[in-house]
Amino acid sequence: MSRKNAFYAQSGGVTAVINASACAVIETARKYPKKIGKVYAGRNGIIGALREDLIDTSKETRSAIRGLLTTPSGAFGSCRHKLKSLEENRAEYERLIEVFKAHNIGYFFYNGGGDSADTCLKVSELSKTMGYPLQAIHIPKTIDNDLPHTDNCPGFGSVAKYVAISTKEAAMDVKSMCETSTKVFILEVMGRHAGWIAAAAGLAQENKKDAPHIILFPEITFDKKNFLKKVAATVKLNGHCVIVASEGTRYADGTFLADSGTRDAFGHAQLGGLAPTLAQMIKADLGYKFHWAVADYLQRAARHIASKTDVDQAYSVGEMAVEFALKGKNSVMPSIVRGNTKRYKWSIGEVSLNRVANKEKMLPRSFISKDGYGITKRAVEYLQPLIEGEAYPNYRKGLPRYVELKNIGVQKKLRSNFKL
Amino acid sequence: MSRKNAFYAQSGGVTAVINASACAVIETARKYPKKIGKVYAGRNGIIGALREDLIDTSKETRSAIRGLLTTPSGAFGSCRHKLKSLEENRAEYERLIEVFKAHNIGYFFYNGGGDSADTCLKVSELSKTMGYPLQAIHIPKTIDNDLPHTDNCPGFGSVAKYVAISTKEAAMDVKSMCETSTKVFILEVMGRHAGWIAAAAGLAQENKKDAPHIILFPEITFDKKNFLKKVAATVKLNGHCVIVASEGTRYADGTFLADSGTRDAFGHAQLGGLAPTLAQMIKADLGYKFHWAVADYLQRAARHIASKTDVDQAYSVGEMAVEFALKGKNSVMPSIVRGNTKRYKWSIGEVSLNRVANKEKMLPRSFISKDGYGITKRAVEYLQPLIEGEAYPNYRKGLPRYVELKNIGVQKKLRSNFKL
Repeated sequence: MSRKNAFYAQSGGVTAVINASACAVIETARKYPKKIGKVYAGRNGIIGALREDLIDTSKETRSAIRGLLTTPSGAFGSCRHKLKSLEENRAEYERLIEVFKAHNIGYFFYNGGGDSADTCLKVSELSKTMGYPLQAIHIPKTIDNDLPHTDNCPGFGSVAKYVAISTKEAAMDVKSMCETSTKVFILEVMGRHAGWIAAAAGLAQENKKDAPHIILFPEITFDKKNFLKKVAATVKLNGHCVIVASEGTRYADGTFLADSGTRDAFGHAQLGGLAPTLAQMIKADLGYKFHWAVADYLQRAARHIASKTDVDQAYSVGEMAVEFALKGKNSVMPSIVRGNTKRYKWSIGEVSLNRVANKEKMLPRSFISKDGYGITKRAVEYLQPLIEGEAYPNYRKGLPRYVELKNIGVQKKLRSNFKL
Repeated sequence: MSRKNAFYAQSGGVTAVINASACAVIETARKYPKKIGKVYAGRNGIIGALREDLIDTSKETRSAIRGLLTTPSGAFGSCRHKLKSLEENRAEYERLIEVFKAHNIGYFFYNGGGDSADTCLKVSELSKTMGYPLQAIHIPKTIDNDLPHTDNCPGFGSVAKYVAISTKEAAMDVKSMCETSTKVFILEVMGRHAGWIAAAAGLAQENKKDAPHIILFPEITFDKKNFLKKVAATVKLNGHCVIVASEGTRYADGTFLADSGTRDAFGHAQLGGLAPTLAQMIKADLGYKFHWAVADYLQRAARHIASKTDVDQAYSVGEMAVEFALKGKNSVMPSIVRGNTKRYKWSIGEVSLNRVANKEKMLPRSFISKDGYGITKRAVEYLQPLIEGEAYPNYRKGLPRYVELKNIGVQKKLRSNFKL
């Protein structure tokens, strides 16, 4: 095998641990200097390849690369740029291969969700027909936990941990003051299509009367009347009610509650978000004092409280991606495989990309309680190990010491610019 | 000195470290069994005393009390119940003294902000005229950091740390994706009257181009045109703009942006909150893709990332409150005194309550940058030591092990019920 360079890119929404996968790819590649030349990273993801805007990771020190293990966000930049089908946009695929060829890139590591798995597969296929074979390995990443054929996705465990802890902490706050103050607290979490993140909030519940008292999932049609009845009953029973709502909560007709079409006095669509919409609903019908929080990016960037399990798995999929490449594998993804033991164990498996691409894994109905407002024992058994362990970053002056790479560019070799 | 019982109550909004003060009061009192009998806590704060609903903390194990050191919220319940002036509601004050007398309470420890300092003072004064002298010691607590005559307030340092870390993490997320995705991110934080919490976000800025790029303070009149100009210039320069906005941000006429009077299609007041209001403003004028987060209770309950300095200080003011009482002091508050050394040092001082009650300490103008959108070096020097150090709770199954006390009630001795 002649020595080839590698290309690594981050795709889609970043996570608290995607850089741990980057760390693993670079550290592992550096162990095989006879087989892998340089690891180039795409500046801002795949558009860095399209623009021939590559970052030379060999310019980064060993300790900077190690620092990625405890640094959230995307160290090289990520992007939301979905390559369309081969028929629709063959030029983009051909450009990628042209750039890879120009920089002697033989390995393509693409770190993302379902869309990027699909891109990865297509690039690999087209490279063959174009006579410049590439080994394309997909590295799973998504806070949404919706990739199929892997027990879970790196990135999810840390969001799950953040959401479970935040729910627990805020609920204790509400409980201790509900006698004279806030009765209803709503936390809005991510998850437009699948309720995995909202479900994780259920881990905060140690006893039956504990928060969260109501979880709203995208998988369960929102029934306003029933919901308000449940809120009222919970406040009556406990003195307060804590609600965790997935941003994807929707009515029977499919419209999101957050986009409920209300307009302000100027005719602008109300950008209220789901949490204030629910709060308004409760106030109007039941009159309770409320508070609400929207975690938004805080939840997926919260490296300070990342799950150790998640960090370890993010590293392992990056490491195995390189090992797979060196074994000559192509169009595959390292997956996380759960052992059959009672005590949680996991290992890295291998999945062919044509099984993964463009499929979504929804939260099973068996994970949601009968009334639709909570999670089941099965869900707890699945979710709990994923938030296990803490993996604290180092601190200086009270703040985490996150690394910022130099991100030095690679000299361009192609004369043409590519218009995105 | 005959042996008397002590009464401890938590007042107002709870914090990540108010229970550390409770821990200190109980642990310190237990060291002096010949001088202090039992420590009774008010269930739900001062209304527990008014209702004669006392909790017997002697029923809690040593390890449960120790657990308070790492448990957020108010372990005995807190309340928003401000005692009015003596003239307006003498009956409430008299009731308190009646209850204290019935339970042989000679020490009154009141853990709260400015209002509770005032209550504490009045109870002490009235007790003298009623012939049942009480030693009333106020223990400072407020995330708002607005108590005078103390360098800072326990509870603030941990919110400050949470806000600085969250700003840093979310900003890294935004920065890594801004090429193709979100350009503007807004984090709404607490602080209706004073901008201390918003200012703390400024600690996230290590280099000039770092986030937060704009901080909105209640102390600085909001100027929409100027603000939008600054947002546009920041996006032009950095590709993105991170804004941290205090909920108390207001227009020149004093109205809060969050209560801007817009109505939805049904004529309901829009409960947008400040962050979505700003987002809407930016979208309408500049068209940038945005995201926003509202931290709400998450910020003041985030014991998982509390400042060690804050925890230590919260403990010390509780400890010293008991020591002050044993020295025969009355109507005082332990304060935090900053040393004059270059390296941060602090000690506990003593302030008379008539100097503290009903005064607010605003963020000095010298802490806010000239353009009104950032903090100065002086502010950093003041704020940074307050977020120093981590004081992690223990974890089990991926979640912090926060304690829940038994909170066993004390048998009532008075025949009368008191109507609040």
